[in-house]
Amino acid sequence: MHPTRWGDPARAQALPDGARGMVELVFGVDDRPALDAAPLPPVAIDAAVLAELARAVGPANVRTDDETRRVRTRGKSTPDLLRARAGDLTDAPDAVVRPGSHDEVAAVLAIAVEHHLAVVPFGGGTAVTGGLVARRDGYAGVLSLDLVRMDRLVSVDHISMTAVLEPGLRGPEAEALLAAEGMTLGHYPQSWEFASIGGFAATRSSGQSSAGYGRFDALVVGLTVATPRGRIDLGTAPANAAGPDLRQLFLGSEGAFGVITAVTVRVRKLPEVKVYEGWRWPSFAAGAAAMRTLAQSGLLPTVLRLSDETESAINLADPAAIGAEASQACLMITGYEGEPAAVEAKRAAVTAVLAGLGGTGAGTAAGEKWAHGRFDAPYLRDSMLDAGVLVETLETATFWSNVTRLYDDVKAALTAALGEPSLVLCHISHVYETGCSLYFTVAAKEADDPLAQWRAAKAAASDAMIDAGATITHHHAVGTDHKPWFAREIGPLGVSVLRAVKADLDPTGVLNPGVMIP
Amino acid sequence: MHPTRWGDPARAQALPDGARGMVELVFGVDDRPALDAAPLPPVAIDAAVLAELARAVGPANVRTDDETRRVRTRGKSTPDLLRARAGDLTDAPDAVVRPGSHDEVAAVLAIAVEHHLAVVPFGGGTAVTGGLVARRDGYAGVLSLDLVRMDRLVSVDHISMTAVLEPGLRGPEAEALLAAEGMTLGHYPQSWEFASIGGFAATRSSGQSSAGYGRFDALVVGLTVATPRGRIDLGTAPANAAGPDLRQLFLGSEGAFGVITAVTVRVRKLPEVKVYEGWRWPSFAAGAAAMRTLAQSGLLPTVLRLSDETESAINLADPAAIGAEASQACLMITGYEGEPAAVEAKRAAVTAVLAGLGGTGAGTAAGEKWAHGRFDAPYLRDSMLDAGVLVETLETATFWSNVTRLYDDVKAALTAALGEPSLVLCHISHVYETGCSLYFTVAAKEADDPLAQWRAAKAAASDAMIDAGATITHHHAVGTDHKPWFAREIGPLGVSVLRAVKADLDPTGVLNPGVMIP
Repeated sequence: MHPTRWGDPARAQALPDGARGMVELVFGVDDRPALDAAPLPPVAIDAAVLAELARAVGPANVRTDDETRRVRTRGKSTPDLLRARAGDLTDAPDAVVRPGSHDEVAAVLAIAVEHHLAVVPFGGGTAVTGGLVARRDGYAGVLSLDLVRMDRLVSVDHISMTAVLEPGLRGPEAEALLAAEGMTLGHYPQSWEFASIGGFAATRSSGQSSAGYGRFDALVVGLTVATPRGRIDLGTAPANAAGPDLRQLFLGSEGAFGVITAVTVRVRKLPEVKVYEGWRWPSFAAGAAAMRTLAQSGLLPTVLRLSDETESAINLADPAAIGAEASQACLMITGYEGEPAAVEAKRAAVTAVLAGLGGTGAGTAAGEKWAHGRFDAPYLRDSMLDAGVLVETLETATFWSNVTRLYDDVKAALTAALGEPSLVLCHISHVYETGCSLYFTVAAKEADDPLAQWRAAKAAASDAMIDAGATITHHHAVGTDHKPWFAREIGPLGVSVLRAVKADLDPTGVLNPGVMIP
Repeated sequence: MHPTRWGDPARAQALPDGARGMVELVFGVDDRPALDAAPLPPVAIDAAVLAELARAVGPANVRTDDETRRVRTRGKSTPDLLRARAGDLTDAPDAVVRPGSHDEVAAVLAIAVEHHLAVVPFGGGTAVTGGLVARRDGYAGVLSLDLVRMDRLVSVDHISMTAVLEPGLRGPEAEALLAAEGMTLGHYPQSWEFASIGGFAATRSSGQSSAGYGRFDALVVGLTVATPRGRIDLGTAPANAAGPDLRQLFLGSEGAFGVITAVTVRVRKLPEVKVYEGWRWPSFAAGAAAMRTLAQSGLLPTVLRLSDETESAINLADPAAIGAEASQACLMITGYEGEPAAVEAKRAAVTAVLAGLGGTGAGTAAGEKWAHGRFDAPYLRDSMLDAGVLVETLETATFWSNVTRLYDDVKAALTAALGEPSLVLCHISHVYETGCSLYFTVAAKEADDPLAQWRAAKAAASDAMIDAGATITHHHAVGTDHKPWFAREIGPLGVSVLRAVKADLDPTGVLNPGVMIP
């Protein structure tokens, strides 16, 4: 992916006319073209070191050309895009190294330790919290460790319903390989088309079907990790009492403790049917209460999402209708995947609960519309940025009794910080028995310095989350952007433990320096 | 509990006549009375230090009398009992300290650090892998940190369905306090009548209703821990992507990283009905396959257990019928708890699956019999030890495709090591989508040195587990007994990480020294 844009260039699109009309109405259009061919800093790594890397992974797999370096620069947060659009590619890696196996990863790490090179594991490049922006100072250079060649479905176990996947597999590739075995992972984050298995594990990703399939960390039953001090293999049983669960220490470690070189995941049978439908609720609170009832009844569909009044209005209305007349109904999406009889039974049970709680069925058209467009939002963001509208997302989670406070506080913080004209949308994207996540999307007319504008809003929202006792991130990870709030969330002793683990596994600090650990 | 016996002395019982006849038939009875009033080693801690402790927690809460020290000596493994029965109480703590709050725990830890006292957190005293047997050498003394006074239900959240519990609450007390709120934890390990909330968390306990309520580590959404370096509070949301899940580092830490002073747990509505019933299967393999089908269909009852041929024969048969004529049918227990309609719906669905797979319903009498006697086995063990029969349990877990190998290998190792006459029984006690646990009970005629006899059998079984790629413990924890095999399970780098965390949180090593960390 180009550092200024999301995804496949062929799918990039100007704003549809209707949307452009809406943007014009709300924000005013202010075309801001991106500087797509900005220059890169010179390669800082010695030729002798590059030759050593080439001996480890093969000459074709050590790249220093501009194009290769450019597309491994940063991730896909709006600040990442804004900096790249303004021609700032100062975070470009010096070289991109593509190991083909665990042993080649280990060999690259040994070279990195010897020459004190920072190593940034790279899967799909879809990070949105600065996880690909390693600290550069004090290092002899930065390597992007691109796992693209490690793209095998290593093995499947049809009895245990598990599969061993390599980290460089992208979402669609992994699903295609599993589908040939009659299996599915069922993990569909919005970044799914580009994001990788290793990235899902390293960031504790959560997908749009998490209600049915579980978060990615719940899917992982085993891990292999390469560290500067050697290899670790974890996962002897679905669960055990053999000390702390060390799998949960490497899940979420964002490349700071090691490079995940294989992941053993729980899989399910490929669903025979998928049904998505819409429900309308008189208010966000009413819809949220219904989600809570489902979660606490053990009656969750595969997909369960709920947009607040503003987001529902944007999604449901004709662009021209945005404004005072917009419907105040909140849109919920329910989805069911599996065998036909099980899907129908679950759907009937959920339908009875939702109807009993005051929901109004809105049919499958609304559900299909959501399913059809579920991976498109990042393309729309690019078009909005082109039109001078700042768009970004952020997310958090808390326990049910704290949801209203968290929602109000974060929304107020964002609204106050962004000023007028701005929009703050929210949906509940993931539910649990004891709580849920809140996912906010904001749009605001770009200020002269949109980066500073966004940083102020992000800081205000993050303060509101931590002040409310919620988490700084439900599924976007810590990266570099969230570190100050993450430190508040886990406290000084939590930070101390992470540093101790880091010092043990990566004594010279070459692994993704500056990322995750405050 | 007395160090030579399980539980409530009033419930201790001689072997029932029928059982005694069976024991006589199989093993021969060889009465071996326990030495119940063995002497204790002198108190090694200075009076000045005891006075300092008394200032921290109150004079009434620092005890050095024989009776108090005696009942805090070791746990309840068969080796623990054998040593106590032989009059060996050398592991008795020097003093028993009973803090009443987090701050008092912290104050005791500070004194322990200052005077280099080993601190053994004590909940119910039901440990079965040596978790209460701290290393003594190099320490100025051993404190049993009895959490019995920290027995409050701190708060309940009826919206989020969570509750904050103190660590000293025993199973029945916790359930009674929650029941008054219309809630249940649903965590019923065999030790439930005596074991504590803190112990459940520190050892990753799993209960007999884990299929419905989940393992204890799955119930925990928040933790507060006192360490020599200060306090840590974890749990801002049901789940998040804010780095590694540090809750999972303290769960299973067995007192080696800190003292758990509060646990926030997910609770459920108190069930209106509980139904338990039996099923018969032509073989252990057929029953296990049915369990796997249920788990992989998302159709789990609240309780799901399956005894192998030998255990079923012991459980089902008249004692006189044991032998070649014993029925080869395997007994499965299914249990359903919840609201009547949900229970009936789940029961009907499970019944259809089990009947379709070749199971034969055995009615509720078998289920009720199991439910009635579910906490009694440890009393029976005492009676068997009195009769000169060595009885012990051990357990493991693996993925479904490996269950047959693990079962065969562990059973063969135990049988070979114990020699004749011996019995090796097994049941599947906990199931997951990807695998299950195996719980073995052995009985053998006591050799002249039953401790050495058991250690050899335990080592052989443990080797078989690790050689098969399974875990050394599904829910009994590491303690001191499992350390060599735990080290093989997580490898040298896993051990290194645990030591690094320990060194960070407990720099002088006062917390349960020698326990859990290889």
